[in-house]
Amino acid sequence: MNTAPRHLLDVDEWPAEAIEAVLDNASRTRDAGERHGNELLGCRVVLLFTEPSTRTRISFEMAARSLSAETYLVDPASSSMVKGETLVDTVRNLDALGADMVVLRHHRAGAAWVAARYFGGAVVNAGDGWHAHPTQALLDLLTLRRAFGGGADALRGRKITIVGDLLHSRVARSNVWTLSRAGAEVWVSGPAAWLRGYSELGVTATPDVDAALDGASAVMGLRVQKERMRGSSLSIDEYIDRYQITDERLARAASGAFYLHPGPINEGVEVSRSVARGPHSLVLEQVANGLAVRMAVLALLAPSAPRGLRGPRVDFSHVAR
Amino acid sequence: MNTAPRHLLDVDEWPAEAIEAVLDNASRTRDAGERHGNELLGCRVVLLFTEPSTRTRISFEMAARSLSAETYLVDPASSSMVKGETLVDTVRNLDALGADMVVLRHHRAGAAWVAARYFGGAVVNAGDGWHAHPTQALLDLLTLRRAFGGGADALRGRKITIVGDLLHSRVARSNVWTLSRAGAEVWVSGPAAWLRGYSELGVTATPDVDAALDGASAVMGLRVQKERMRGSSLSIDEYIDRYQITDERLARAASGAFYLHPGPINEGVEVSRSVARGPHSLVLEQVANGLAVRMAVLALLAPSAPRGLRGPRVDFSHVAR
Amino acid sequence: MNTAPRHLLDVDEWPAEAIEAVLDNASRTRDAGERHGNELLGCRVVLLFTEPSTRTRISFEMAARSLSAETYLVDPASSSMVKGETLVDTVRNLDALGADMVVLRHHRAGAAWVAARYFGGAVVNAGDGWHAHPTQALLDLLTLRRAFGGGADALRGRKITIVGDLLHSRVARSNVWTLSRAGAEVWVSGPAAWLRGYSELGVTATPDVDAALDGASAVMGLRVQKERMRGSSLSIDEYIDRYQITDERLARAASGAFYLHPGPINEGVEVSRSVARGPHSLVLEQVANGLAVRMAVLALLAPSAPRGLRGPRVDFSHVAR
Repeated sequence: MNTAPRHLLDVDEWPAEAIEAVLDNASRTRDAGERHGNELLGCRVVLLFTEPSTRTRISFEMAARSLSAETYLVDPASSSMVKGETLVDTVRNLDALGADMVVLRHHRAGAAWVAARYFGGAVVNAGDGWHAHPTQALLDLLTLRRAFGGGADALRGRKITIVGDLLHSRVARSNVWTLSRAGAEVWVSGPAAWLRGYSELGVTATPDVDAALDGASAVMGLRVQKERMRGSSLSIDEYIDRYQITDERLARAASGAFYLHPGPINEGVEVSRSVARGPHSLVLEQVANGLAVRMAVLALLAPSAPRGLRGPRVDFSHVAR
Repeated sequence: MNTAPRHLLDVDEWPAEAIEAVLDNASRTRDAGERHGNELLGCRVVLLFTEPSTRTRISFEMAARSLSAETYLVDPASSSMVKGETLVDTVRNLDALGADMVVLRHHRAGAAWVAARYFGGAVVNAGDGWHAHPTQALLDLLTLRRAFGGGADALRGRKITIVGDLLHSRVARSNVWTLSRAGAEVWVSGPAAWLRGYSELGVTATPDVDAALDGASAVMGLRVQKERMRGSSLSIDEYIDRYQITDERLARAASGAFYLHPGPINEGVEVSRSVARGPHSLVLEQVANGLAVRMAVLALLAPSAPRGLRGPRVDFSHVAR
Repeated sequence: MNTAPRHLLDVDEWPAEAIEAVLDNASRTRDAGERHGNELLGCRVVLLFTEPSTRTRISFEMAARSLSAETYLVDPASSSMVKGETLVDTVRNLDALGADMVVLRHHRAGAAWVAARYFGGAVVNAGDGWHAHPTQALLDLLTLRRAFGGGADALRGRKITIVGDLLHSRVARSNVWTLSRAGAEVWVSGPAAWLRGYSELGVTATPDVDAALDGASAVMGLRVQKERMRGSSLSIDEYIDRYQITDERLARAASGAFYLHPGPINEGVEVSRSVARGPHSLVLEQVANGLAVRMAVLALLAPSAPRGLRGPRVDFSHVAR
């Protein structure tokens, strides 16, 4: 790769060859069943999470340590670092401590870009507000490719339908980008209020879930929470009645269509238990692929050597002597 | 051992030879002063705690890392994993991530059995509700054996008395089983309301603490908390007056009888400071033995090789191509 | 060193040669850009924090792991260990588990001394109430020495001014001691109510910040929090107006005078952003020096070998057989 990216802020900022390199690497890890490496030996990887997300945190933590990194956790429970100071100060501090990578989950959209501006190492966006979650998009893409038995062209011409709370999803927009770019025909469905803005992304947005499912090769569910139904005009019961992905509803899709979900799943809300745990569910494949993809991302962004304590930023030669 | 157990859910499910193997191994660790090993090299051990229990967590964490495991902590403070999804989903996720062991402290009785059903690696029960706490029972047994200077027969015919809040103890029932099986004559004592069901376990249950202590070789205290006195008909002051283990009360036991307590101790409630920290207190022995026992349990349950990322569960060959 | 200290409780208990050894070692680490070592290989270092302090915790955690220690975190979020029992019990437990070091941040003044009485390994005080924070004093001293381009004499005769909430600072008193001992002329300034007791320490205490700044070679800021202004007779706005360190106010100090702050900084309160991030700010130098100093402290206090599980404290030979 001529110009390896320095950060992973969002997938749409990465060159195609970086995406392909990560997917290839992760796919080999899955084929081999596991991988351990020294790419991050002696490196300090800080997992900076301002909102709880145990499963993403554990996945990144396992990925970093499988590459021999030292990991340090700053989570909401211990986030005096975050509360008592701005993100900028936190990141400047981590930079001075010689951290090599910051994996950032932040409640505010755009936080990863702010961090990247002040951090000398690599920043990996592990979710910023409802904005982006690039490793999720990459692992979803990998999961679909592997399920469809192929490489970069495996999704071309396939209909992929995303159903659920598209308004509060940090996953959906990143996925629309990667899936469209992979040549898929992307549909999104859910209550009309949640679909705003999606048709501008070049996808077909419709509240008619039957039409959206018709002939789809894969259905990607999104979490639906009672407390967020206000954004819609439906009650949770109406949502379940009209949009829950059940075996019956899934039968409208292509024969043997896959079901994916980024988790955590509200079984009985956005999807029935039968589909979520059924023979065409790729949910656990996503989890395993997620670890493999995160390892590949961290390996790609690994510094050639640990950065070490940052040298003096102050010119001591002419002052106050 | 012909059939090494796969999990440690409760002591009464373990074959005698597994228990003996663990106690022998742990006793050698104590004799040697310490032990480090590679039994869990490259293994992912997840400490999944849905309720706070720092001392048990630290003990297991030290045990796992002394055997070269990678440990991952999911605690109540970061338990979105636990709140946002069911235990079953959490465990299925950890399985897909290739975790080798889950050490589970859960607020619900029976949780470890549920986890074991969905997890491909080993589950170690670190306390489920008020139900069981098998490593505590094992470390108590080891502590008594070593104090009585012997092997499997060291407890035979000895009177061992358990005093305290037997109703809310996850320790007492497991201990009754191991101590009875070791040939000890087990007595339990405390306010009558807390003794319900114990006589059915084949022990002598009596609110008369003097009778219970008379001639005992060891007294095992249990934590008594003000907020749980409702289960009894006594006030906390009445409990202290009638049941606190003091030097005077302990004098009714055999000369030099030992005092044990699983901790954390409420000094001045269930026991006087003088007894808790006195020359016959085995409390710190229990702590040291606890680490040794947990190392032995983890070593016994260690996989022959790390499990790695779990392979495809979905047959991709006939679907949606 | 003839008698290496066993603990670091406060700087004023350390012999001069221990302080010099730490500063030399840390300075070499900074010159080299980084250092990794095996001084704590196989050692268990427990970070016991009863109040949140992520940045001090991360710095100590990085320091310990850079020396190959196994670190264990007990923080406020998981502090059942701390809530459910006394500090003494916690420390006795950690001792029995064979912990080699306890790095203690505690909300009560004097806690580190209590811990040291019951712990067989080394105790490092990482801040006790508003009392002491010895590694901060050491890193501040190192930072000033390196900025002034010299060794033990670099501060001699220089005026150093501390401005801010001197009443609630765990840093100021330790700094007064180290700076005075290094031959500096120490001034402290802030609202009169915050200056009580400082003149007895042999420093010049004045509410007149202009006089305090006049000709100073370095200004050390202390955090000022709205909720603590009650200790003063000023409002937060009055404080900002009269005491905030701005470029204009800093111009009263010596040409090129440095600005230091232990963090976290309330930009716009005790200091302007322009000064805090300006060319003479040593704030990030302090952060990097902090890691180097903590590595040096831990290395100096490292045991010759890991302590291991503590042997029997009970004489089993004459009791209850």
